[in-house]
Amino acid sequence: MPPLTRDVVRFGSFVVTSQVFHITPLSFALVNLKPLLPGHVLVSPRRIVPRFNDLSAAEVQDLFLTTQRVSRTIERVFNATALNIAIQDGVDAGQSVPHVHTHIIPRKTDDLEDRGGTDAIYPMLESEDGNLGKQLGEREREKEKEKAEAEDQRAHFPRVDVDERLPRSEEEMQKEAQWLAEEMAKDEKDGRFS
Amino acid sequence: MPPLTRDVVRFGSFVVTSQVFHITPLSFALVNLKPLLPGHVLVSPRRIVPRFNDLSAAEVQDLFLTTQRVSRTIERVFNATALNIAIQDGVDAGQSVPHVHTHIIPRKTDDLEDRGGTDAIYPMLESEDGNLGKQLGEREREKEKEKAEAEDQRAHFPRVDVDERLPRSEEEMQKEAQWLAEEMAKDEKDGRFS
Repeated sequence: MPPLTRDVVRFGSFVVTSQVFHITPLSFALVNLKPLLPGHVLVSPRRIVPRFNDLSAAEVQDLFLTTQRVSRTIERVFNATALNIAIQDGVDAGQSVPHVHTHIIPRKTDDLEDRGGTDAIYPMLESEDGNLGKQLGEREREKEKEKAEAEDQRAHFPRVDVDERLPRSEEEMQKEAQWLAEEMAKDEKDGRFS
Repeated sequence: MPPLTRDVVRFGSFVVTSQVFHITPLSFALVNLKPLLPGHVLVSPRRIVPRFNDLSAAEVQDLFLTTQRVSRTIERVFNATALNIAIQDGVDAGQSVPHVHTHIIPRKTDDLEDRGGTDAIYPMLESEDGNLGKQLGEREREKEKEKAEAEDQRAHFPRVDVDERLPRSEEEMQKEAQWLAEEMAKDEKDGRFS
């Protein structure tokens, strides 16, 4: 399954092409390595800048029109009733990847009842689970390790085994990205964006 | 001191005209009754709609260009190094006033060190302090009570005493709104918005 775009899409210093499910000339939306809740996605400007105020007027407009379109589809397909939309704008506000990104987190009644109630999403956003930089860094290190192991084994095992060793999470993310791209297209076709 | 605008500005069912420090054809920015941190302000569309997805494209664009302009001035005048920018979009995401609003909260290194660290802003946002609807409702009830008391005393005391009884918080908010309006104008004049 090819990724949605032929462009190499970067989120900060990380290549996230296979996670992208929507792309415009100025923005892109990506699924998360470790969503805080099902359907937790990110929307970023394509230009890598750390702060909201670094964005041009055109980038601001496109980022939030994209956020609105994405949030509509996410709310529908995850049967949500509400959304948390949040930017951690700068390190002292909890930003972990120096590339502007809007979190979209679909919410339902009492979805976090067993974890402390509606408010529990915020400590989660700030906790290790929300530390995108750390997670993506770990994934890069895991990929390097697996690549080294795969290269080591290539001499001894047929190719299929190497393929089976590809990180499953990457495939899962790409499947989700493909599904969301199709659902976005449906909403566009149905005129839900107009 | 007259408010910034002659229009009556409503935030949900509440009249907040004296709290407004910036206004555009489609959006307005207001100071808070109880800011979570100094400089915590809100930006809303002028049209009263509950959900982000209720906004037209023009409203989305104006709301976030306004949010960007306001955040620039707020970060500068409150000597902040970062910002939390957040929308609680729907009741199940913690929304307390059914009128779209973006929280802008200026942040500094270790500003919440004594309250649990950077992350502490989120439980605060969700706590009673962040319950704008409750606070504004309480203020309306206080105003009604004070008005009734003032009318009762008008027969016995000179007018000046009635004026002194006006809620101080309202004056404080209006002063802050006036100051921020002036600071916004400075940034506009200096071309910081271009």
